[in-house]
Amino acid sequence: MKTKPKILITNDDGIDAPGIRHLWNALKDHADLTVVAPSHEQSATGLSITIRQPLHIRKVEWSEGGNAWSVSGTPADCVKLALNVVLSGPPDLIVSGINRGSNAGRNVFYSGTVAGAIEGVMHDIPSIAFSCQEFKNPNFLLVESYVPSIVDYVLTNPMPKGTLLNVNFPKLDNGAIKGFRMTRQGQEFWIENPDMRTHPLEGSAYYWLGAKLAEFDEHEDSDITWLKKGYLTAVPVHVGELTDHVHLSASKNAFERLLAR
Amino acid sequence: MKTKPKILITNDDGIDAPGIRHLWNALKDHADLTVVAPSHEQSATGLSITIRQPLHIRKVEWSEGGNAWSVSGTPADCVKLALNVVLSGPPDLIVSGINRGSNAGRNVFYSGTVAGAIEGVMHDIPSIAFSCQEFKNPNFLLVESYVPSIVDYVLTNPMPKGTLLNVNFPKLDNGAIKGFRMTRQGQEFWIENPDMRTHPLEGSAYYWLGAKLAEFDEHEDSDITWLKKGYLTAVPVHVGELTDHVHLSASKNAFERLLAR
Repeated sequence: MKTKPKILITNDDGIDAPGIRHLWNALKDHADLTVVAPSHEQSATGLSITIRQPLHIRKVEWSEGGNAWSVSGTPADCVKLALNVVLSGPPDLIVSGINRGSNAGRNVFYSGTVAGAIEGVMHDIPSIAFSCQEFKNPNFLLVESYVPSIVDYVLTNPMPKGTLLNVNFPKLDNGAIKGFRMTRQGQEFWIENPDMRTHPLEGSAYYWLGAKLAEFDEHEDSDITWLKKGYLTAVPVHVGELTDHVHLSASKNAFERLLAR
Repeated sequence: MKTKPKILITNDDGIDAPGIRHLWNALKDHADLTVVAPSHEQSATGLSITIRQPLHIRKVEWSEGGNAWSVSGTPADCVKLALNVVLSGPPDLIVSGINRGSNAGRNVFYSGTVAGAIEGVMHDIPSIAFSCQEFKNPNFLLVESYVPSIVDYVLTNPMPKGTLLNVNFPKLDNGAIKGFRMTRQGQEFWIENPDMRTHPLEGSAYYWLGAKLAEFDEHEDSDITWLKKGYLTAVPVHVGELTDHVHLSASKNAFERLLAR
């Protein structure tokens, strides 16, 4: 009999968010699951880690007696404490989500959900981030039904070290996913659109960052493009080295000469 | 007469940190400066942005009547509010730092200092991050003396869109920088080393993440390697697309077949 894989579940919407329950439901029959997730919402915290506050970790009631802990920090904090404090050994896989809202395009740099998976591959653990383009009313039950085969695919077809799979589910205007694309990361990301308000006591101005999409002329084969067409997208995202090798080769000599004293 | 370049200064150690004053001193005679920096320390907050709290922005007293504002958020928040609220147009350059502690290797993913520069290139503004390997007692005066030529280099030799310059100053055992290297990003990063303590009232366990270096067999031409030898390093860091193209080409068909229903 095959041993069930050990899977760590985290997210950035917080341990009480519905998406993480659906992720657990999707995998409960297929894997030995442990949940370690933020006690409060941590959307858009990127790969932030908590070094100026201590982290509190608490056992949480979970359906069917599942193993679940909350951490008073970010998704990256959760993965760090899971690996060092909660689990007795590294899991076979880390899954993060299911996020409410798209993490396609350059949102990978800002997303807490993706950061959970980044922290995983930083520790050489295969990792997947799951997100829904639909923000207000995601069809988590439909998403749930696709999770096991994607997880099984990653467990049986290992990704390279440092590469995670960033999965996004399209908005479903007609209730159906049109198909699947493993594709490139697009360029779109949320930019600020600050909304100024006035503090009720001080009378001073304060701001909500707000958000609007910075639109780009996307590659025809990108997650942004395929999501718009109604396809589920999976981008193999590599984190490790960000060197601009073209610029490095072109500029190395000039830079080093300029600064020689 | 040449118009002075417009430069936005930010950091992650907070507006009261000494490093940002030294950055301002280094550039005050060369540029039209605006400081927009976090009101409190934001080390290791990565590209986190604040969407569940409003942001307060306040004019701050600065030496020689300099223009300075504090923002109750992260370095990325500071850049966003600077571009949308404080400045009347995009600056010619964003500089972030001078950070206490190395941001070489894979610390680029966690660093708030580098995130200030990432947020800059996300908006197509040339950006530089300055950090000192020495944490406890950095020689900011020496660092300050190198800043103007590096800034001038980037202003006169534009980097590609999406590419920032990540500059790190070595520990100075003998008081001298051995030389300059434009080089590759190394693989080293800080991993957790949790320190368990007991809460004085609850008696419950809590954790400080702590940190120890995950060591790697670094490329001989990497920032980690050159810093160890006493060289100033500058890595052109590209943020935009993280697609693992090798894995994408190899796995696209298998992934798309597997999931076809």
